[in-house]
Amino acid sequence: MTSVDLNADMGESFGPWVMGQDAELLEVITSANIACGFHAGDPDVMAQTMATAVARGTGIGAHPGFPDLQGFGRRKMQLSQDSLRNLVAYQFGAARAMAHAAGGEVRHLKLHGALANMCSADEAMARAAYEGALSVDPEIIVMVLAATAQQRAVEALGCRWAGEIFADRAYNDDATLVDRSQPGAVIHDAELAARRMVAMVQAGAIITESGKQIPAAVDTICLHGDGKTALEIARHVRRALEAAGVTLETFPGRRGTV
Amino acid sequence: MTSVDLNADMGESFGPWVMGQDAELLEVITSANIACGFHAGDPDVMAQTMATAVARGTGIGAHPGFPDLQGFGRRKMQLSQDSLRNLVAYQFGAARAMAHAAGGEVRHLKLHGALANMCSADEAMARAAYEGALSVDPEIIVMVLAATAQQRAVEALGCRWAGEIFADRAYNDDATLVDRSQPGAVIHDAELAARRMVAMVQAGAIITESGKQIPAAVDTICLHGDGKTALEIARHVRRALEAAGVTLETFPGRRGTV
Amino acid sequence: MTSVDLNADMGESFGPWVMGQDAELLEVITSANIACGFHAGDPDVMAQTMATAVARGTGIGAHPGFPDLQGFGRRKMQLSQDSLRNLVAYQFGAARAMAHAAGGEVRHLKLHGALANMCSADEAMARAAYEGALSVDPEIIVMVLAATAQQRAVEALGCRWAGEIFADRAYNDDATLVDRSQPGAVIHDAELAARRMVAMVQAGAIITESGKQIPAAVDTICLHGDGKTALEIARHVRRALEAAGVTLETFPGRRGTV
Amino acid sequence: MTSVDLNADMGESFGPWVMGQDAELLEVITSANIACGFHAGDPDVMAQTMATAVARGTGIGAHPGFPDLQGFGRRKMQLSQDSLRNLVAYQFGAARAMAHAAGGEVRHLKLHGALANMCSADEAMARAAYEGALSVDPEIIVMVLAATAQQRAVEALGCRWAGEIFADRAYNDDATLVDRSQPGAVIHDAELAARRMVAMVQAGAIITESGKQIPAAVDTICLHGDGKTALEIARHVRRALEAAGVTLETFPGRRGTV
Repeated sequence: MTSVDLNADMGESFGPWVMGQDAELLEVITSANIACGFHAGDPDVMAQTMATAVARGTGIGAHPGFPDLQGFGRRKMQLSQDSLRNLVAYQFGAARAMAHAAGGEVRHLKLHGALANMCSADEAMARAAYEGALSVDPEIIVMVLAATAQQRAVEALGCRWAGEIFADRAYNDDATLVDRSQPGAVIHDAELAARRMVAMVQAGAIITESGKQIPAAVDTICLHGDGKTALEIARHVRRALEAAGVTLETFPGRRGTV
Repeated sequence: MTSVDLNADMGESFGPWVMGQDAELLEVITSANIACGFHAGDPDVMAQTMATAVARGTGIGAHPGFPDLQGFGRRKMQLSQDSLRNLVAYQFGAARAMAHAAGGEVRHLKLHGALANMCSADEAMARAAYEGALSVDPEIIVMVLAATAQQRAVEALGCRWAGEIFADRAYNDDATLVDRSQPGAVIHDAELAARRMVAMVQAGAIITESGKQIPAAVDTICLHGDGKTALEIARHVRRALEAAGVTLETFPGRRGTV
Repeated sequence: MTSVDLNADMGESFGPWVMGQDAELLEVITSANIACGFHAGDPDVMAQTMATAVARGTGIGAHPGFPDLQGFGRRKMQLSQDSLRNLVAYQFGAARAMAHAAGGEVRHLKLHGALANMCSADEAMARAAYEGALSVDPEIIVMVLAATAQQRAVEALGCRWAGEIFADRAYNDDATLVDRSQPGAVIHDAELAARRMVAMVQAGAIITESGKQIPAAVDTICLHGDGKTALEIARHVRRALEAAGVTLETFPGRRGTV
Repeated sequence: MTSVDLNADMGESFGPWVMGQDAELLEVITSANIACGFHAGDPDVMAQTMATAVARGTGIGAHPGFPDLQGFGRRKMQLSQDSLRNLVAYQFGAARAMAHAAGGEVRHLKLHGALANMCSADEAMARAAYEGALSVDPEIIVMVLAATAQQRAVEALGCRWAGEIFADRAYNDDATLVDRSQPGAVIHDAELAARRMVAMVQAGAIITESGKQIPAAVDTICLHGDGKTALEIARHVRRALEAAGVTLETFPGRRGTV
């Protein structure tokens, strides 16, 4: 029987500022990537988000990012590999504590924003970041963008991991994302997104714009929660997967190459 | 056989700014209170400090403070009890991760600066802060200022704790510290400080300015490392205790009332 | 002819986080208190807010607060008088630059949150904060809560100032605010708020719950923009004042005692 | 008569952390680049540094950097041009206020760390940063690294500027700095540094390793204050220039191309 996980970012409020539609998203997803206080989130927001995820039975993930609150971790920063290791270990540790205090445990880790983007193109950087997480918990499941340098890094590290595809992005024939400047790069049609996800999950492959199938670790689908369209896509994807008989559950984590 | 622990704050550098004489202090103390990134310290400083403490076999403590880097956590802030809990849990979790990544474990927790001062006068506040730590690790040893609201809080919580006295401060007959504005309140004479510490450790009591002995949990002595005098006092206290046959080692942690 | 100013806080977004209904508020108010980056706002938010205020012809105010982003400047902090001076001067300078870059000028300054609350009860503290502003621009108009220590501070300093009353708070017979725990302390009825403001502006006095009139510097009315009710009250107050023939315009600033 | 300015960074302490040897440097330099609170410095440090510079008659410069305290503004960040403009305007404004409060005025602006490095290679980025400063004060003198994209930017903007050379770095024949990985790239010999500076100032040219003279805007010499060697170089350079009859004074600022 086929199964897949649905993940989304959560806990991105900060102090008095609210972001996202966490309550609505929690009804859709099976794993939550929770901000750790550097690009978003704060100890109070984390406590509340962890409590909600625990109550709902959602898989909890640490979601570390660059120390750039104003830029929401979306601006590239050039850090040494040691700093990357320590940055991820620190945030992961904070997330573990907040999860534990709420009665849960962190089971996966996913990088945020510019840190994630840079690591999907730079294996050494991805490796440093993941080493930071593994130094804290060698059994953590690292969520990686399938078929990127992130995946190569976890394969080389030999750790547990899960592969992720995007619900709303078109793929090139080399498994990279179609550049956002191209028409059709970002999918806004909820029905289309849902059909594509069912097809990819059933095929266990990324299906490119040309129709090519690239076998891939389709363990989890990245959904968004910002704005009406994103939530509509998230809900459609979930419903279509259920209708197709796909089980929605958190990934067990895999080891080694695909 | 009598034994006591010697503790000091460490890892208080930040980014490019160096503070303290950590290397010299490590030769004197048996427990280190390591800053957690909110009032001092950063992930890189923590990684390095943890590694040094592990290499030396020093007992590792988390040392959380107010989120006030410019004020070094020494300016009073009024936070809700929930925020206190979450603030301490977050920093404690980060410290645990950094310690673990360095091959060690956090065995105690001590509050810093204005947070500590406010909690030594306000039992409910101390309790909230300690609850944050205990929600992460119920076996953590909480280091408290002996005979203050901090101690009443851990006694009420029923958790593991260790009592602390100051090497360089004079005590009133009600076990409070002589106000800094009074002559003799702060002890600058290393020989005097050392003699006093030997006497208090052997008596298992706080000895006040009038000579009164107040039985107290004399588990650890707070030393400082800023400036020449502080280091001299630290060294004298250690030598005098060794000469008096007192064993210097980390505290096992106690439970219940003195 | 009677005139009064209507003021509200603006530019309280930060990075990706949006707060407030600045566009709607700008149609109501004549003076904007713009956050300066310590408790809210950032250089980008300030640039945009200044540009909007300039385009609209709204009086621009600097709105400095405590350096506590997570707490939105609403948590009490204990700073030295020197730090207060420098804190206000720094933020005021930043606001002046951003206003000037947008083609406008800062004409008033109003303290935010816990900083304002503490200064309305502590004249020495208010004085230190205002001295920081006056050291940058001795002609700045300081907006003070009428009949509080803030007002006593500006009277003592001999600087330009404007007195402020609340649209949505009830007053005691000693001109202090009715405690929020009391029924009727906060006014939620837009019609009632509007009637009260017209009466106070026409009387040039604070009118207390018992009906007592206390002559006061009623130069500006503090409105809020968070939530539907706040905006409704703001609009009602404006309409009622216009209907009563009161001119709505920024205050010229006064000197000396009332 | 030949004259030149000597500049160095100052006010790089933060909160309780002291950096640099400002008092010693002030005896050597004629212009100070004062940190503005984003990569170093805080309102209290700025107030004190401005006061000292005013008392000494040193030319005051704003020294804005990236918002990265932990990284001391030395880590590359990718910001939009609008953010760069606003970032510089904000910090410049804060510096102007603090200078004015201390009885002085900011007369120049110099970018710090990674921001400066990136702008010395990217004219559009330099232009955006300088536009931020000029939007606050069109008469500010922008200090640029001679013969880099920074200089091209000020020439294109038509603003006032001053050209800077390094006392302790060797130059290639295209006026770029010899890479730090090459032997002789950084000059540690105070006598050598002093001889070179006298030659370059008298020639009004950068003199490269091969002996080639490249006419350049030698308006100011960049000195450092961190460590014994830096201070020794700074003092030697000053003494040698004085001995050679060069007047040491702040630059008037030039316009247009060299």
